Amino acid sequence: MADSSAERGILSVEDCWQLLREQEFGRLAYVADGLPSIVPLNYAVDGEQLVFRTAEGTKLTSLLADAHVAFEVDQVDDENETGSSVVVRGEARLLALEEELRLEQVGLRPWLRGDKAIIVAIRPTEITGRCYNLRRPWRHMMRR
Amino acid sequence: MADSSAERGILSVEDCWQLLREQEFGRLAYVADGLPSIVPLNYAVDGEQLVFRTAEGTKLTSLLADAHVAFEVDQVDDENETGSSVVVRGEARLLALEEELRLEQVGLRPWLRGDKAIIVAIRPTEITGRCYNLRRPWRHMMRR
Repeated sequence: MADSSAERGILSVEDCWQLLREQEFGRLAYVADGLPSIVPLNYAVDGEQLVFRTAEGTKLTSLLADAHVAFEVDQVDDENETGSSVVVRGEARLLALEEELRLEQVGLRPWLRGDKAIIVAIRPTEITGRCYNLRRPWRHMMRR
Repeated sequence: MADSSAERGILSVEDCWQLLREQEFGRLAYVADGLPSIVPLNYAVDGEQLVFRTAEGTKLTSLLADAHVAFEVDQVDDENETGSSVVVRGEARLLALEEELRLEQVGLRPWLRGDKAIIVAIRPTEITGRCYNLRRPWRHMMRR
């Protein structure tokens, strides 16, 4: 079969940040006890870092033991059959109290609150993004 | 502030499988050189395992070195402000040729082909799912 799967393009770092700012929901990958873990979460962009709230628990304990993380957001445009994905690598750190207070003032989303009292920031060391041409032949078939 | 963030429910394993069968796009987390990696990919459900295609490269090399993976799919219903997420943990393995041929016959999606010649299967050892009540107050404000 000829290659009809996906044409891919590389997103510029600027386009990656734009997608990161547009989205509010992503997936955090981290290593816990040597095993990969993944968890969906809400986040916000604060300058050149990502911030999210978390409660005390295994995720936080793992991040304190090994701060390396990878974070992914994506967007699928079903109408145009295209998709974009951004992956951020970096290290997680707990925000100091004064930074937390500053974030309150810039309006970190209220629905990120609740019992999730601890704010974690990820400062990216690497940002990569791709756009995909999905081409889903069976969808066209279904439209007939 | 009172807790107004999220009410959460646990999905049954059956509901998790249903979401896995409905979706075709997820994110694979794995450990490469001790660091967490995450990559979006297309997948299909084959019986009680997940299958996806990959090309030779760093992802495949990493999976051969450490087969432990976590895989996530999710679905956000903007209208009802709810979301669901399923996380699968398991080990990745390359499919033997006879299994590949069987999958051809059950119709693994054509757009998963192309240069991605190697089929990888994940047999889950743990499946967990959650549904979220998102409650995004600013959206209501924006509608006014």
